Amino acid sequence: MTVRTVRAYRRLSVEERRAQLLDAALSLFAHRAPEEISLDDVAEAAGVSRPLVYRYFPGGKQQLYEAALRSAADVLELCFAEPQAGPLTGRLSRVLDRYLAFVDEHDAGFAALLQGGSVVETSRTTATVDGIRRAAAEQILLHLDVPAPGPGPRLRMMVRTWITAVEAASLIWLDEGKQPEATTLRDWLVDQFIALLTATAATDPQTAAAARAALALEHPDGPAGLLARRVIPVVSEAAHLL
Amino acid sequence: MTVRTVRAYRRLSVEERRAQLLDAALSLFAHRAPEEISLDDVAEAAGVSRPLVYRYFPGGKQQLYEAALRSAADVLELCFAEPQAGPLTGRLSRVLDRYLAFVDEHDAGFAALLQGGSVVETSRTTATVDGIRRAAAEQILLHLDVPAPGPGPRLRMMVRTWITAVEAASLIWLDEGKQPEATTLRDWLVDQFIALLTATAATDPQTAAAARAALALEHPDGPAGLLARRVIPVVSEAAHLL
Repeated sequence: MTVRTVRAYRRLSVEERRAQLLDAALSLFAHRAPEEISLDDVAEAAGVSRPLVYRYFPGGKQQLYEAALRSAADVLELCFAEPQAGPLTGRLSRVLDRYLAFVDEHDAGFAALLQGGSVVETSRTTATVDGIRRAAAEQILLHLDVPAPGPGPRLRMMVRTWITAVEAASLIWLDEGKQPEATTLRDWLVDQFIALLTATAATDPQTAAAARAALALEHPDGPAGLLARRVIPVVSEAAHLL
Repeated sequence: MTVRTVRAYRRLSVEERRAQLLDAALSLFAHRAPEEISLDDVAEAAGVSRPLVYRYFPGGKQQLYEAALRSAADVLELCFAEPQAGPLTGRLSRVLDRYLAFVDEHDAGFAALLQGGSVVETSRTTATVDGIRRAAAEQILLHLDVPAPGPGPRLRMMVRTWITAVEAASLIWLDEGKQPEATTLRDWLVDQFIALLTATAATDPQTAAAARAALALEHPDGPAGLLARRVIPVVSEAAHLL
């Protein structure tokens, strides 16, 4: 067994070995809080010795965690890429499906990372998470297709608050044993986006233009049409406000 | 000078001295990141010696920070108390005014606390912040006055995501030099609440009942009336969705 392990060591290049250790670390960090994971666990999961892990990650668990987080961040940022075609709610739904699949797959690690107060949390891990949020906001703003000089502070604030709402909802979702179903949560988050965009449109001309353009592309049987028809009975009783 | 300081020491009871040290710590932690504050700063601000600070807070800076945070949390939770009378948007506006005044007053400390990755962040500080969020959610749910058996998961999730959106907007507001004006931010956050409540009402009967009851109490010249009249021109172009 030792001989075969040594052979396996030789077969992998430095880069391949690093990637293998990262993979092992990422799947451990995905499903347990960082506090619960030791370097021995990572070594065992990768089928290597603890000194070998240290050779690749001299900074130990902290360095492994940060590298695993960076690699998860790259995966997550790829989820945000979506062609700028078709109704906006369809694009948002597809991005949210990929995002929620990621959350589902990395549940415990995702929760530990975003809940804060973790032993491995540093200004670098916080910066990585902020980078993901910024990347998500930039992607959404691209889809809103605002003419030059680009999105103003109100539209940016709206998109950033929605992203935080998505994060918060994902954490609650994990906390409640992944209830309701991911597709139900996705539809509700899309509804929230339309609602926030419309409410912000009330006081910001740029958002109003973006909302008009987005609504014009929606289909009656899509999320915006469904939401509009369902909201009417609720607000129609408030005719005294008009 | 030494004699007078010694006299001043004697004049304060243990509880008074503790409160005085906490006050000094809180005003330091409010305006600078915890990383930038030393026990010497606290001792100097309180006009006492460093050993005296240690006598009251043997855990040093970490213990002082946690105690200051606990005392700030108590102040903040008081901001949430609001009589259950009048239109819901008026109640929310008054709570938000007090909350934003708190954010304004504790700017740097508030941002450092919520941005995470701070050296003083522990599972205890995270628990304190979560406790504030829970208290805020419970207060809002009280105002929505849902009949027994009380608010279900969707309404709870809606309220919790709005609270996170308020936090995120507050952080962006601090980051952008407190722009726009606090009252403008408050009005926008109230608009967001109405929008989220209405959008959630579309798919959750309990939220629909709460939204109907809340809208019935609103005045035409209040936030909900203003929002409704401003949203109509934006959505009226999307008549193809109905």
